[in-house]
Amino acid sequence: MNGIAARLKPLLGDIVREDLPTRQSHRRDRWILGELDSSDDSLPAAVLEPTCTNDVVKAVNVCRSERIPVVTYAGGSGVCGAIRGSAESVMLSTRRLTGLVELDPVAMLATFRAGTIGLDAERCIESHGMTIGHFPQSIEISTVGGWVATRSSGQCSTAYGNIEDLAIALEVVLPDGRVLRTRRTPRTCAGPDLRQLFLGSEGTLGVITEVTLSLRPRPPSRRGHAFHFAGLVDGLEPIRIAVQAGWRPAVVRLHDAVITARRFPQLCSDGRCLLILVHEGPEAAVTCEVAALADLCRAHGALDAPAEAVDHWLARRNHVPDLRELLRQGTVAESIEVGCTWDRIAHVYADGIAALRREPGLVSASAHVSHVYRAGASLYFVFFATDTSPEQLADTYRRCWDGLLNAVVRAGASIAHHHGIGRVRRHALTEELGVTGVALLRQLKRALDPADLFNPGVLLPDGDAMD
Amino acid sequence: MNGIAARLKPLLGDIVREDLPTRQSHRRDRWILGELDSSDDSLPAAVLEPTCTNDVVKAVNVCRSERIPVVTYAGGSGVCGAIRGSAESVMLSTRRLTGLVELDPVAMLATFRAGTIGLDAERCIESHGMTIGHFPQSIEISTVGGWVATRSSGQCSTAYGNIEDLAIALEVVLPDGRVLRTRRTPRTCAGPDLRQLFLGSEGTLGVITEVTLSLRPRPPSRRGHAFHFAGLVDGLEPIRIAVQAGWRPAVVRLHDAVITARRFPQLCSDGRCLLILVHEGPEAAVTCEVAALADLCRAHGALDAPAEAVDHWLARRNHVPDLRELLRQGTVAESIEVGCTWDRIAHVYADGIAALRREPGLVSASAHVSHVYRAGASLYFVFFATDTSPEQLADTYRRCWDGLLNAVVRAGASIAHHHGIGRVRRHALTEELGVTGVALLRQLKRALDPADLFNPGVLLPDGDAMD
Repeated sequence: MNGIAARLKPLLGDIVREDLPTRQSHRRDRWILGELDSSDDSLPAAVLEPTCTNDVVKAVNVCRSERIPVVTYAGGSGVCGAIRGSAESVMLSTRRLTGLVELDPVAMLATFRAGTIGLDAERCIESHGMTIGHFPQSIEISTVGGWVATRSSGQCSTAYGNIEDLAIALEVVLPDGRVLRTRRTPRTCAGPDLRQLFLGSEGTLGVITEVTLSLRPRPPSRRGHAFHFAGLVDGLEPIRIAVQAGWRPAVVRLHDAVITARRFPQLCSDGRCLLILVHEGPEAAVTCEVAALADLCRAHGALDAPAEAVDHWLARRNHVPDLRELLRQGTVAESIEVGCTWDRIAHVYADGIAALRREPGLVSASAHVSHVYRAGASLYFVFFATDTSPEQLADTYRRCWDGLLNAVVRAGASIAHHHGIGRVRRHALTEELGVTGVALLRQLKRALDPADLFNPGVLLPDGDAMD
Repeated sequence: MNGIAARLKPLLGDIVREDLPTRQSHRRDRWILGELDSSDDSLPAAVLEPTCTNDVVKAVNVCRSERIPVVTYAGGSGVCGAIRGSAESVMLSTRRLTGLVELDPVAMLATFRAGTIGLDAERCIESHGMTIGHFPQSIEISTVGGWVATRSSGQCSTAYGNIEDLAIALEVVLPDGRVLRTRRTPRTCAGPDLRQLFLGSEGTLGVITEVTLSLRPRPPSRRGHAFHFAGLVDGLEPIRIAVQAGWRPAVVRLHDAVITARRFPQLCSDGRCLLILVHEGPEAAVTCEVAALADLCRAHGALDAPAEAVDHWLARRNHVPDLRELLRQGTVAESIEVGCTWDRIAHVYADGIAALRREPGLVSASAHVSHVYRAGASLYFVFFATDTSPEQLADTYRRCWDGLLNAVVRAGASIAHHHGIGRVRRHALTEELGVTGVALLRQLKRALDPADLFNPGVLLPDGDAMD
């Protein structure tokens, strides 16, 4: 038994796991750079497995008084390096904090323990004739608590909103051991919205233990439609006009020519850009929306694509290629999602792709748009790169990130849309928030976690320790 | 010249106003209790009138180093006592911080200086063929900065959202004099959303200097419809079903029998409850929505009301009776808005009205629903009360507030929906946020404003000073 486990065991009992398999399965998230790092020493000293909020309070209080850093491990599905073990810290796993706490079918609210896997939560709600409406690609492995901690987006966000629109109340164990329960209300104006501190906090401001989600009836009608455009930018204009006019297709997904050719071979002419639309809601509303979007798309030069394109996408929507296997073959693949306003999006796309292409090791660069707002949209860049050794591949990987982030920030984009910051983007946080914004975030962190014990080393860039 | 003005004048020059008319016109907001308070001593030491963000920075820095409390005065239209002068503090007026800074017709974003009057902002945007879509009753006298500081709601919120959905970026001068500019992006996930600290902060965390609003095209179609129901609760059910199904009428306004009889005489049978619906958007969407809502309402026992009811409401929507004149006649009138989930709303309504009726001085108690969400709705209580002297009327007024807030909190409601907390509700904040929530809010306040110089005495309840 190592020193930390030995200190915690008498204080916390059975929730302390120190066996090697458990520690190994909680060493880090799915950040691809972890796989490239031959000097990886990410084994946590112990894994804490609380089964209730009181267990979490005890664990937090003990770790605070023992000055042991605490990293919350939820689904481990993150891709930005927010989770990494070390011999000096413990992982607090939420995997035994699962299940439905309360379901209100009138207000359509469901409270889940934070460690509930997304798909389990959705199936539970579907069995009651409703839907959460939140479908991140990671839904089979991510958790409702993780969704909140990372400000998650789902594939139907254009109609249903992102996690900040769905999670209407939280229970959080704060770093000082107190339990915050925000009020279950559709809206209030009693000071700043305290929920918001924890949406995107990535484990740095406490441990999320319960999430209350706003539900909807299962949509009575669903219809898909696919179109193709000469270029990505051609397809953006009808989408912008439609969303600003108030139309809200559940899925709006516009792929550039590279990704269209790779993911929809035989379904779209070479060099064209495929748009997938899925409309959901009451039958009459769906009928209106289908007609309005089709008119707009055709008026902007779209050609109809085969309906199979929608089915093809729906069938594969949660498929993630095996990036580790690809890496063993010497190729690193990564996705980098950013947000930007409509006036900048063509530049952000062009400059981002150009920046990636400047990298000698680059094999392929592409992007798609999949979350759409009145003011702008997300751009989801994907690159593949190769090099002669794991060390050189890691350097290539970092240069792709830096080149892309620099280019998109210069062109006016946000450095992230829905994957979070973790370790891979924290050096760029000042570009996003400004010096004042980063300093303000540090002040909040210091106010809540003065000893810097909660997931230290993520989100905030290096700098004057906590100042 | 008083002491504070004399100290500030050499440091801040012409932006310092110490003349009596200016100080008198900035003494407090429209909280009705101010009118009842014969010992009112709310004259500020001076009024600062910055004309640009740099002026605000200077003013904040000087006041901080001189330890002079700063109260930001925007439109002065608040009704909760958030603004009150004192001989020891200065008012920072935003009335010269006005006008459009930037308009982006592609991303549909407009940046206004914080002191811009709401109606001026809306007219400016309408002249470009768009709308902000935010129509608080106070629009002729409230400001875009005040909307953010108080978490304002507008009359079309069910379709267009509240101010937190519209204000996508802020410029704020923090208590330490630094200027925070949040990123102009439709969405990001770079840590907690820092904008949210200032939405509802009521001047306690800095001075909002610019607000970027997300706009929409002016709706091509608008149609109204009115129905009446046997009781308020009967009318809630079709509204709940419609909103949960995804319909979003711009205006959803259901009045109880008392307010229906008072505001719509001749337009609705005695004892019935009038529902006003206004549908806006593309013509086809409006047609669908009108039919869907009408079917739902009729299926739940609604009878059609004359179309003039909608016009009657639209024509008087921003009319506020002269409460001061009423007060001179010995009657106090007040509105108290709360939020609650659908499962509780019938109880909150019944218990709230019953609590008001227990007050001997009560003349009339009523409520309407005017902001509707998937999870619940607002309830806007209005009471009239009378008593034999101003002092006793003030006591009656306070008992009405306390009785109502206690009753609605017990029945499961939030203590506020969109008027803010100010002074009138701060003693009840612990009911809303819990002991932990209030302590967390104090921690945030202390982190940003350690000397408690920004609008001290509002929002947070009395307690261990800042602990």
